[in-house]
Amino acid sequence: MSNNKPILYSYWRSSCSWRVRAVLELKKIPYEYRPVNLFSGEQNEEKFRSINPFGLVPVLMVPNVSGDGHETLFESLAIINYLEQTNPEPSIYPKDTIQRAKVAGIVEFIVCDIQPLQNLGTMRKAAEFGGSPNKGVEWNRYWITTKFKQLEQILHSLSGKYSVGDQFSLADICLVPQVYNALRYNIDMNEYPTIKRLFEQLLANEESIIKSHPDKQVDSDAQKKS
Amino acid sequence: MSNNKPILYSYWRSSCSWRVRAVLELKKIPYEYRPVNLFSGEQNEEKFRSINPFGLVPVLMVPNVSGDGHETLFESLAIINYLEQTNPEPSIYPKDTIQRAKVAGIVEFIVCDIQPLQNLGTMRKAAEFGGSPNKGVEWNRYWITTKFKQLEQILHSLSGKYSVGDQFSLADICLVPQVYNALRYNIDMNEYPTIKRLFEQLLANEESIIKSHPDKQVDSDAQKKS
Repeated sequence: MSNNKPILYSYWRSSCSWRVRAVLELKKIPYEYRPVNLFSGEQNEEKFRSINPFGLVPVLMVPNVSGDGHETLFESLAIINYLEQTNPEPSIYPKDTIQRAKVAGIVEFIVCDIQPLQNLGTMRKAAEFGGSPNKGVEWNRYWITTKFKQLEQILHSLSGKYSVGDQFSLADICLVPQVYNALRYNIDMNEYPTIKRLFEQLLANEESIIKSHPDKQVDSDAQKKS
Repeated sequence: MSNNKPILYSYWRSSCSWRVRAVLELKKIPYEYRPVNLFSGEQNEEKFRSINPFGLVPVLMVPNVSGDGHETLFESLAIINYLEQTNPEPSIYPKDTIQRAKVAGIVEFIVCDIQPLQNLGTMRKAAEFGGSPNKGVEWNRYWITTKFKQLEQILHSLSGKYSVGDQFSLADICLVPQVYNALRYNIDMNEYPTIKRLFEQLLANEESIIKSHPDKQVDSDAQKKS
């Protein structure tokens, strides 16, 4: 681990990886980027499974206490909350406990109740069950639209300038990659005006989100072409 | 809200609700129990949707700061982490930041990468895609066995007396309800010896888990029959 920088295993288009990249940018933590190609199946190869048996990105390797080795952290929120604890400023949560719980509730709805139902692995299994690749896309569109309708209602009541009130938080960091996924499946965002407003504003103005955008990653199609 | 006790909206067989019940028991927080029948669809009725537009249990209503009303908290981990922050002892996390991140990683894998893929709503949709109710069961069995194989590998290396080392934690509280779900789908737990050992030991000895067991809830089949 050169210079004791943490190492992030990431895939450019993985929304879970984007969340962690955004937090690393926000907290100005330098890190080394190691791409894992989820589309071609590198996450299932022995080389990566020996790092994370779950076969998932992101993974963050951090120096251990004695400085002679590393610890492997997995799962995006676990990594993010570790980063928050070890690098508390700027914080990704409001100070007030109730407001923090509201942010955490939005985060969990996106991270647990939307993303896993529409990721690559689930979509492929749904296509198999439905008997055609189109059924995989139909599955993803069903879940994203159903859940966005509910999310819109909650964000309509909780949001201010940001997803929860007027403070930038982890809810915003999780929202943007999820909308990015939705756009890949041609979801009409005009149905969800609050989500659309937040997404566009965040993507245009928040440096941590802009710098961690999929297209900026070395393994992205955009970077490979340029 | 009588006596200012928090109110928990729960369904006896919901694994997400069980997690919160176990934390309330562990921290000895008295609460009022309000059942929501997920099987008959009460979560989709206007009465409950006005409480939580996500249409999900658990929901915890807690007194607001001024004491003249309440705040509604949704999503199980958001509720649990609020309880941890406001009632820190006994803690559900190790003090060491790395160990805490390992616990959080196990928790997130169960809560995000297993449970949502095999809950009632997802199973019903999978049955629709597959063209028969049996396909819903096949879907759940596929995800539970695939993910348990990975979880077994990680817990084999991280566990001691408990899921992560020798300290009882939120990982244990999330593991038990997930295995309880697996048993409903006749998963052969002998394939996962570490998970099986932890489950049996926790269910036999941990008071917070025993007291919050589905069969002990007023809306359970067991209680209705007795």
